[in-house]
Amino acid sequence: MKAIESYTKYFLAHREVTLELVKKIEQENYSYQPTPTSMTAEKLVAHMAVSFYSFVSVVKGGDASTMRQSINRSDSNLYDFAKDLTNQTVEIIQSLTEEELNTIIDLTNSLGIKVKGSRLLQIAMDHEIHHKGSLFVYVREMGHTDLPMFVSKG
Amino acid sequence: MKAIESYTKYFLAHREVTLELVKKIEQENYSYQPTPTSMTAEKLVAHMAVSFYSFVSVVKGGDASTMRQSINRSDSNLYDFAKDLTNQTVEIIQSLTEEELNTIIDLTNSLGIKVKGSRLLQIAMDHEIHHKGSLFVYVREMGHTDLPMFVSKG
Repeated sequence: MKAIESYTKYFLAHREVTLELVKKIEQENYSYQPTPTSMTAEKLVAHMAVSFYSFVSVVKGGDASTMRQSINRSDSNLYDFAKDLTNQTVEIIQSLTEEELNTIIDLTNSLGIKVKGSRLLQIAMDHEIHHKGSLFVYVREMGHTDLPMFVSKG
Repeated sequence: MKAIESYTKYFLAHREVTLELVKKIEQENYSYQPTPTSMTAEKLVAHMAVSFYSFVSVVKGGDASTMRQSINRSDSNLYDFAKDLTNQTVEIIQSLTEEELNTIIDLTNSLGIKVKGSRLLQIAMDHEIHHKGSLFVYVREMGHTDLPMFVSKG
């Protein structure tokens, strides 16, 4: 399906930048947080990877109550965790059907709206881009100045 | 046109959050920057407001060479500047025609691609959401902890 091919490309154009940033985060900076009320770097990256995976899983199943908030990270390396979930996310995206994209999903509890699967895919992208925008500041504050553009030119 | 109505709503759902953040930036924090290589708060907000206005102007005119990098800010208040450009941006969005959305725009010089007007509107959104994600960190670092969700439910 053409829409799915183009969405996969769109997802990866942003996710690859996320992964590039994650690669720069050394283990001693996993607990870095810009302010005491901010998520730590580790929590932020896990939140991004798990959320996207969960959003597309919800589109696949059509049921928002299956939304997962966290996934156990046995692997101690944050990059490997994010990269692995990226692959699993792509796999689900590529299995999506026209019918699933058109199914109405009830997000009343989380966002106060009911949306089509295809719209939830856009919300997932916006969520990724939003948190990646924050992550750029975190990584710059860790001392990195050679940073990628916000979206990969692919 | 239905696409334009829904895009206007999508734009404002994010821009209103941007404006809410800008409202929290006091004049003495205009020059705040998280690191010496970061944009100042003032520059970041102006960049967001001017870029979106320029992106939609390019879609309107079909010519990327008209892209403006800056607009003179005579008004000393950052919120008023951003709010005024928001209104002007909405005005242009609402005047867009089907033909303009389908016109191919040559972005070879900036992004290395040629895209339809409608795709440039998505790039404009992604650009806004990206920088708003950074702005959240800035505003939290200014001491604010009562922050909105990344997108308005309204």
